[in-house]
Amino acid sequence: MTAEAERIRGIYVPHMVPLTERGEINERELRLYIDWMIDRGVHGLYPNGSTSEFTRFTPQERRRIVEIVIDQVAGRVPVLAGAAEANVRETLAACEYYHKLGARAVAIVSPFYYRLSPDNVYAYFREIAEHTPIDVTLYNIPMFASPIDVPTVQRLAEECPRIIGIKDSSGDLAQMMRMIEAVRPIRPDFSFLTGWDAVLMPMLVIGCDGGINATAGVVPELTRKLYDLTLAGRLEEARTLQYKLRKVFDLLLYSADFPEGVRVGLAIRGFRMGVGRQPLSQKHQQALAQLHQALWELLSQEGYPCEAPGACGPEARTGFDPAEVARLADQIAAALKARGLP
Amino acid sequence: MTAEAERIRGIYVPHMVPLTERGEINERELRLYIDWMIDRGVHGLYPNGSTSEFTRFTPQERRRIVEIVIDQVAGRVPVLAGAAEANVRETLAACEYYHKLGARAVAIVSPFYYRLSPDNVYAYFREIAEHTPIDVTLYNIPMFASPIDVPTVQRLAEECPRIIGIKDSSGDLAQMMRMIEAVRPIRPDFSFLTGWDAVLMPMLVIGCDGGINATAGVVPELTRKLYDLTLAGRLEEARTLQYKLRKVFDLLLYSADFPEGVRVGLAIRGFRMGVGRQPLSQKHQQALAQLHQALWELLSQEGYPCEAPGACGPEARTGFDPAEVARLADQIAAALKARGLP
Amino acid sequence: MTAEAERIRGIYVPHMVPLTERGEINERELRLYIDWMIDRGVHGLYPNGSTSEFTRFTPQERRRIVEIVIDQVAGRVPVLAGAAEANVRETLAACEYYHKLGARAVAIVSPFYYRLSPDNVYAYFREIAEHTPIDVTLYNIPMFASPIDVPTVQRLAEECPRIIGIKDSSGDLAQMMRMIEAVRPIRPDFSFLTGWDAVLMPMLVIGCDGGINATAGVVPELTRKLYDLTLAGRLEEARTLQYKLRKVFDLLLYSADFPEGVRVGLAIRGFRMGVGRQPLSQKHQQALAQLHQALWELLSQEGYPCEAPGACGPEARTGFDPAEVARLADQIAAALKARGLP
Amino acid sequence: MTAEAERIRGIYVPHMVPLTERGEINERELRLYIDWMIDRGVHGLYPNGSTSEFTRFTPQERRRIVEIVIDQVAGRVPVLAGAAEANVRETLAACEYYHKLGARAVAIVSPFYYRLSPDNVYAYFREIAEHTPIDVTLYNIPMFASPIDVPTVQRLAEECPRIIGIKDSSGDLAQMMRMIEAVRPIRPDFSFLTGWDAVLMPMLVIGCDGGINATAGVVPELTRKLYDLTLAGRLEEARTLQYKLRKVFDLLLYSADFPEGVRVGLAIRGFRMGVGRQPLSQKHQQALAQLHQALWELLSQEGYPCEAPGACGPEARTGFDPAEVARLADQIAAALKARGLP
Repeated sequence: MTAEAERIRGIYVPHMVPLTERGEINERELRLYIDWMIDRGVHGLYPNGSTSEFTRFTPQERRRIVEIVIDQVAGRVPVLAGAAEANVRETLAACEYYHKLGARAVAIVSPFYYRLSPDNVYAYFREIAEHTPIDVTLYNIPMFASPIDVPTVQRLAEECPRIIGIKDSSGDLAQMMRMIEAVRPIRPDFSFLTGWDAVLMPMLVIGCDGGINATAGVVPELTRKLYDLTLAGRLEEARTLQYKLRKVFDLLLYSADFPEGVRVGLAIRGFRMGVGRQPLSQKHQQALAQLHQALWELLSQEGYPCEAPGACGPEARTGFDPAEVARLADQIAAALKARGLP
Repeated sequence: MTAEAERIRGIYVPHMVPLTERGEINERELRLYIDWMIDRGVHGLYPNGSTSEFTRFTPQERRRIVEIVIDQVAGRVPVLAGAAEANVRETLAACEYYHKLGARAVAIVSPFYYRLSPDNVYAYFREIAEHTPIDVTLYNIPMFASPIDVPTVQRLAEECPRIIGIKDSSGDLAQMMRMIEAVRPIRPDFSFLTGWDAVLMPMLVIGCDGGINATAGVVPELTRKLYDLTLAGRLEEARTLQYKLRKVFDLLLYSADFPEGVRVGLAIRGFRMGVGRQPLSQKHQQALAQLHQALWELLSQEGYPCEAPGACGPEARTGFDPAEVARLADQIAAALKARGLP
Repeated sequence: MTAEAERIRGIYVPHMVPLTERGEINERELRLYIDWMIDRGVHGLYPNGSTSEFTRFTPQERRRIVEIVIDQVAGRVPVLAGAAEANVRETLAACEYYHKLGARAVAIVSPFYYRLSPDNVYAYFREIAEHTPIDVTLYNIPMFASPIDVPTVQRLAEECPRIIGIKDSSGDLAQMMRMIEAVRPIRPDFSFLTGWDAVLMPMLVIGCDGGINATAGVVPELTRKLYDLTLAGRLEEARTLQYKLRKVFDLLLYSADFPEGVRVGLAIRGFRMGVGRQPLSQKHQQALAQLHQALWELLSQEGYPCEAPGACGPEARTGFDPAEVARLADQIAAALKARGLP
Repeated sequence: MTAEAERIRGIYVPHMVPLTERGEINERELRLYIDWMIDRGVHGLYPNGSTSEFTRFTPQERRRIVEIVIDQVAGRVPVLAGAAEANVRETLAACEYYHKLGARAVAIVSPFYYRLSPDNVYAYFREIAEHTPIDVTLYNIPMFASPIDVPTVQRLAEECPRIIGIKDSSGDLAQMMRMIEAVRPIRPDFSFLTGWDAVLMPMLVIGCDGGINATAGVVPELTRKLYDLTLAGRLEEARTLQYKLRKVFDLLLYSADFPEGVRVGLAIRGFRMGVGRQPLSQKHQQALAQLHQALWELLSQEGYPCEAPGACGPEARTGFDPAEVARLADQIAAALKARGLP
């Protein structure tokens, strides 16, 4: 197999973890959810990412989540396990554990809370790459963590064969092109995956290998089809889908604090998501009810029904009062318009 | 002609104005430059934009520049005349003047210095649109001026037939898609033109009508060819060109304070650019000499020679000492690497 | 006189220019306004600053404004004339003109629209300082113009005796201390004046020489008294006034696009401000009506009445419908609370 | 005791945790360090803050650190224990544990990684405040975590008697005044503590009750004396000290990624700090060696010697090669100047 053929490609899902009404991991629902995504064509799974609320679980819970995912996947698709822990030692221990479990690679977000300078971001990943038994993908999400800049990616790609790709959630196409130009000539096996679903198709057009996309956890059929059409060069059709995916993405991202919108989206698709760990204000719960209605209309219209048996309809399993939802529906047009979302 | 057919399309140049050694408008060189661009296939010209240093000229000089441009163009290509003045009254007077001269439309940057709220940005353009005798294109450049957000574009497009398009220099593809989705259904004649050359090709792929691109003033052959290939669906070739254009764009934009890099680029192509009006520090002059060398190498390599007779070579007409340039050449690799530019 | 004694000190006003109902300079009202401010103890005037909307006047109008101010002042207080024009040549011509008129110094804002690197900000001021016949004060307002950083101030202070001070509108006390520490030892005659009224008193405490304060154009009595109490070491009383001034400042700054709030404040004090040059949306006009009511209540409460004969009361001379104002009054508490302004 | 008298006041130290050469908690050195700070007059300690690198320890280590601190303090000064964990449930468990240990209160940073909207920041603290057995201080550090805005502080102060103060590390005096004005009238017992050492004195002048200051972990004598002089109204002397503290603060903060500079400062004072958990690049280690030299000179000059027996001199116990340090010393003036630090 050529180096290029080894690249991680396709649509990976940074999937949420369904919880119980008490906020515990809902293993049964998580397993149902994993099967559902794989059945709809996603190329791989990525537990313990930002959408997965990795910071809100304990170290033990993060390990348990990966155990469940890898067990349920049972080799059907590769798993990129989010492995960032409190420090390098803890992170390496997680790497070893996920390696033993059979993960394809780990994904490690750049150090967060403190904003590190590029050369210390480099030092951090370099230290991990030298001691990890498993391949590593970098995770650049400048809105939440220390940015990984182009020279840093280039240097890591040059020096660390263990580092095999990057998920970039900046959404900046020019930056992606700079990275690709800097790294491809020296590392044809290195993958570039976008985390900004709103521009997935143009990212693929300029050379990305795929995406790690939160929308793929809500409308995997749509994200996957967009990927396939783009690779097939059917750009007119792909563009139409990209506009739809942009709409879903905006609703999920800008109607509520991330990733609460994704939880609503999964409830609409029929999953029991339980009660999140971040307390939500009344105002925020109203915003979520509005989002629920808007997203339900959009998904129904696009033909992405609620599919879990006995779980259909806008109110099913969601904890929202149907009367409340109906009352709020009138406010939606105004609310969306105010957000500039057509 | 259908509404869609009326749209402004193609590659427009926000071109610089060559100056004399004393910083005055160099009319002769400007006329040569205009011919040179048109000969190389640009679809239109845009004097008094950001690249044109419109803020560094007096109101009288801005008018003189448009006079020269429209006279020299002589109907060969349409002209979008930058018409922003100190206030609405002065701007409207400029609109009338450029209308009489025969401009296709005016381009008006959002109010700058003060950062206005979206509803006052709306009020500003609305006031102009109601009284102008000439079509208006909006100019959104959030890094320099008050942002024009999606609801504002939508509202102006709905209410003001005189407003016929927007130049957006944010470089944000998702934002461009939001604008297109909000406006196209109600205004099929409305043009979307990107000012971010680094992503011109993907912008065209997601639905833009063209670009107003500073690089088209330096390498019009390249920008035009990228446009043609993209429209012809030859995406592999287009992608290769887009990567090259990205490299030119980064050099022009990030090696020096904007738009000094463009002045260097034009000097390399053989034009006498004279002495700019913004005093430059010694350190900055060194940076420009380095840029000159790097850009000259890149353009030579890509086959964009210095074409003005008697003006060829890296040192020609530029005011840079060849010895100095040679000495600095060694520093270039390091300098570029530090900027993350491969 | 020692070098330290020469420093510009006290409270200067970056004052607005009253306009007519057609948006022209209202010379008669401007003269009344100048007298009114001087009578209330301001130490100097600063026409053509940000509050003065200098960018919305033509070059000719800017000169006319300084003519009127210097003529009306008639030597009673020093005048710092804002002299920034389109480029160095035009700026120097304005410097010469204001020098002849008898201005104490000119104030020159850092280059705006384009964001220049520090070394070109240096080059710009250096070029001006070498050719101006009149003393220059720098004007640092990073939210609107290229920042002037500490090494730049230090270098200019070292090299340019013509540059005698800086107005800093960043509101950052630590930054002000860095500048003072860098410059005082080498230039005891150099003035540091804050443009951030909300922290005037602590700025004086850490070593500033005074302020150039928009609030001093609306409540000169308050700003002046705060200055006097602070210099007298009566900090308890000064703190109480600083809290009041902070409240006025927040209302003026955050209730509307700058500097519309100042226009409302002057209307409340009894001046005919006319119609501004920036068109305002209906929504913004409502916000201004709310601000009018809130500010009128605050100023009345603090004993700063409308003093122009025949012009008193919340509705007087302002162009706002009293019924409208009354209706909107109920919305104020909510609106202010939402802005976090107690 | 009146409500006002109950306020937390004075200088608290968000102190680092000395590590061994293998990166483990160095309990012996931590105990020495605690005694040393108390002997030099700090009013309280704050383990598990940003300077304490709380994110780089495991949940178990964070508990162990507080155990050691409270045990060693033995009631001499109050302890504010940083208690933020992965989610509300874990945080509440930590609150209970620190309550049993005898902490005066816990300090809880606003949710980080995700940027929450103000109403969810409110919901988070509200949820904690309703179930905690121990008093809570809010921790606002917008550069690292979701901002806590003025209406949120006001609402929490109104509704939650358990919340008794805020540490604000924004350094924004106007914002601090807004918070004080919103909260003091309803909660005279509520404390306002600044985390921005560079403006400690002006913060006290405008009404703060004290500071939680990283510099107090390096030069407790200086920070404490500044506090005392300011409260005594000896502002001239206080200003001189504030300028010195500003210099120390800038060196610690801007010479290296936070909080590496603090580690260097403690090494200079004579403590064995061990090896940090964040890998550092060679370039960064050079920067730290330069900082070491500069800080050592500054502290020696100001009379803050290395006091640990057998540990004195710039090179002692630090792991830096004296020859290396000497060689780098020449680069310091330039490096500092480039940072604008006089």
